[in-house]
Order: sequence, then structure tokens, then C-alpha cells
Amino acid sequence: MTDSRETGLTLDPKWGADGLITALVTDGDSGEVLMLAHMNAEALAATVDGGEAVFWSRSRGELWRKGATSGNVMRVRDIRIDCDQDAVWLIVDPAGPACHTGEQSCFYRRVTKDGLERLE
Amino acid sequence: MTDSRETGLTLDPKWGADGLITALVTDGDSGEVLMLAHMNAEALAATVDGGEAVFWSRSRGELWRKGATSGNVMRVRDIRIDCDQDAVWLIVDPAGPACHTGEQSCFYRRVTKDGLERLE
Repeated sequence: MTDSRETGLTLDPKWGADGLITALVTDGDSGEVLMLAHMNAEALAATVDGGEAVFWSRSRGELWRKGATSGNVMRVRDIRIDCDQDAVWLIVDPAGPACHTGEQSCFYRRVTKDGLERLE
Repeated sequence: MTDSRETGLTLDPKWGADGLITALVTDGDSGEVLMLAHMNAEALAATVDGGEAVFWSRSRGELWRKGATSGNVMRVRDIRIDCDQDAVWLIVDPAGPACHTGEQSCFYRRVTKDGLERLE
């Protein structure tokens, strides 16, 4: 039922055709958006149960425990879900840069009418 | 070139097979994540040029000027794009609730081990 999913208190994620929902991550201190990734049911359950961010890597086709290789784990303070339950918002304490480029956040460039600008 | 897209200063969105990228929206004052939506090239251009959030409605299959019917437009303070340019982050001043349920944010429920909780 749409109403239940949108206003109820039952976790009922609306998995996409690929079995995924979107996961966005913000820094619990700065509030900055750090990254956007995806979760399957296993990743969401692992994140809720374990308290550290676990995603599904679409490029590698496998569960992705954030920081497993880099050490930059993300301790989860809070998890929110949106009205139609196809996106979750993780509020985290990151142990290091979120982005594989080495930037603190993946969103390190501004979009302007004249192209992109690197943020200071 | 992947390197250019990931580290360069040329706007080169990585449109999905559906012609869309993800757009997440935060409140410029509170920092709260308000909603997650999608943009096609026209929506992104309209947002950059016009200074108000324009999305692509996947359900209606049409351009969606946020607030066109509700009046709850989102004035855009800043736009960021992520490393692989398949997601943008809009920092906005919302004129009213972002969510069609009437909640300020679509992310108005917390995910816990025991289900969902409505935020105060």
C-alpha cells in the first residue's frame, strides 16, 4: 500500500529493478554531503545492524564495506528514509576522506553558468 | 576521459541510460536533506540558468518546476556536482515543505533496528 509505505512506520524499501535504493551520506559535524551510493537489502541490513556504512558497489557487483581497504570507515549516527522509501540518508562520522579522489566530499566542485569551479 | 570528468572543470554529466542524473536537495539554513529527485539535461540547464530548482518527473514523464503548482519553489543558493558527475547537490532556500506529504523534508522518519520512527 502506497499510504503505508509513505506514512507508516514499517520499513518497506522500494527496491529498484536493479534491487537497489539510493543512499546519500552527510557528515554529522559539518552537515556537508559527502557522497551518494547505493544499497541492496543486504547492505542496508548490515548498516542498520553494524553501525558502519555498507553499500552495494554497482561497478564491482559486490557488497562494499566503506573503508574496508582505505580505512576510511563511516560510523553511522543516524539513518533516515524518504517518503517513498527509495532513498536513505546516513548521518555519519567519517574516519577520512569520503571520495576516492582524496577529497573530503565527492561534491568538491561547484556548477556555474560558466562550467565547474573547485571549492576552496 | 574519466580523469577529466572526475577532476576537471568541464561540466560533463554522466547521464544514465534513462538520460537522468540524481539531484539531492538540502536546506541552506538548516542543512537538512529535503528531498532526492532526478534531472535530465533540460532540467539541469533550467536550474543553472533560472536559479530555481527544476527536476524531471519520472512518474509523469515531464519537466517538473518544483513549486509550480504548490508554490513551494526552491531558490537555489549553490549547486555542487560529484566526482563522477552523475549526481548534483542543490543548496536551496525552500518556500515551503519539500515533501508532498506536507513534511518539511521527505526524510522525516528514522530507520532503527525495530522499524521506523517519526522524527519529532
